[in-house]
Amino acid sequence: MSCAAKSMSTRSYHDRMSTRDRILDAAEQALREHGIVGATTKRIARQAGCSEALLYKHFPGKEALLLAVLLERQPTLGQALTRLRQGAGQGDLADALTGFAVAAVEFYTRAAGIASGVLADPSLMAGFRNMLAESGRGPHVPVLALAEIIKAEQGGGRIDADMDAQAAAAMLMGACFHRANLSHFVDLPEDTRTWAATVVGTLLRR
Amino acid sequence: MSCAAKSMSTRSYHDRMSTRDRILDAAEQALREHGIVGATTKRIARQAGCSEALLYKHFPGKEALLLAVLLERQPTLGQALTRLRQGAGQGDLADALTGFAVAAVEFYTRAAGIASGVLADPSLMAGFRNMLAESGRGPHVPVLALAEIIKAEQGGGRIDADMDAQAAAAMLMGACFHRANLSHFVDLPEDTRTWAATVVGTLLRR
Repeated sequence: MSCAAKSMSTRSYHDRMSTRDRILDAAEQALREHGIVGATTKRIARQAGCSEALLYKHFPGKEALLLAVLLERQPTLGQALTRLRQGAGQGDLADALTGFAVAAVEFYTRAAGIASGVLADPSLMAGFRNMLAESGRGPHVPVLALAEIIKAEQGGGRIDADMDAQAAAAMLMGACFHRANLSHFVDLPEDTRTWAATVVGTLLRR
Repeated sequence: MSCAAKSMSTRSYHDRMSTRDRILDAAEQALREHGIVGATTKRIARQAGCSEALLYKHFPGKEALLLAVLLERQPTLGQALTRLRQGAGQGDLADALTGFAVAAVEFYTRAAGIASGVLADPSLMAGFRNMLAESGRGPHVPVLALAEIIKAEQGGGRIDADMDAQAAAAMLMGACFHRANLSHFVDLPEDTRTWAATVVGTLLRR
């Protein structure tokens, strides 16, 4: 490959990446400012400085763009699960799970806008549901991951072996998801860390 | 009061009630068919056979109309809480809580469309939030009611007295709320009753 060709190839690679990033930035901003209904692909493309055709080259539809914003721009839940997995068997388990629960509430609070927007739009929902089914992704995956972490801690003797790990994960994750949604509708009395510590203590009691 | 005046007053009372009912019916149908975005007050009034002005006489805004649909047309959660309260100290507690959890998943599955539609619309959300704050209503109220029922059962010795009732209620209600939302996005492997029985068993273990 000649130097000129290599430089061209490198530049076009970077251009493609930066267009994708610009589209994700624009989508985030449009969602924040206009809600999911007002965050049209037309508006997002204009804000990203590209054509709608180019937007659709990077993302096959609005569903795929929304999923990318959820997965790539709001990655706290994946990071929080990784921290929990890496800390298995070490330190204070109740503290670690409390930290995870706080991160989960924060993640779900931010994700609620997109998730609810998808849920409120029957046509968007149908496409989103198909895309999740094909990719094996979805909002149930973090619950399964948390259940695996709980099982590992049961193996290490730090959590009661008789406890059903799936049910425990469903309760902890569900409590966080519910609280995040409640916080949009009403002012909650306790701060999230105090609340999370009580929930984790109740879950882990022997 | 003369007979004629009384008859007039009774008839106009009935007319007002049936208009309100017709508007609620129309709102339910519009939400089901067009989602929250398409369920405009104009469309609902037309379907109910009344003017928008008359709709606004019965409901000060779309927020109030949506809240009435949630409270009056989807009353399963209130009924399920009442059943649980009335059965305190009697029968099989795990069965009763499992039945409650199944009803809660069903309620939240149906309510998700309206709740998510409100959450996805910043202007609707602001009005809804103010209305809930003024009325003391809101999605946190059933969690408080469930915590009171758990406390009563703790007093009766059927639930471990050391368990934090608020945290237990947050986990059970949160798990149901989360499952209802998950069910819109992905196919869940277990049936709801089996799932609920495992969750309740995990919560109540001593």
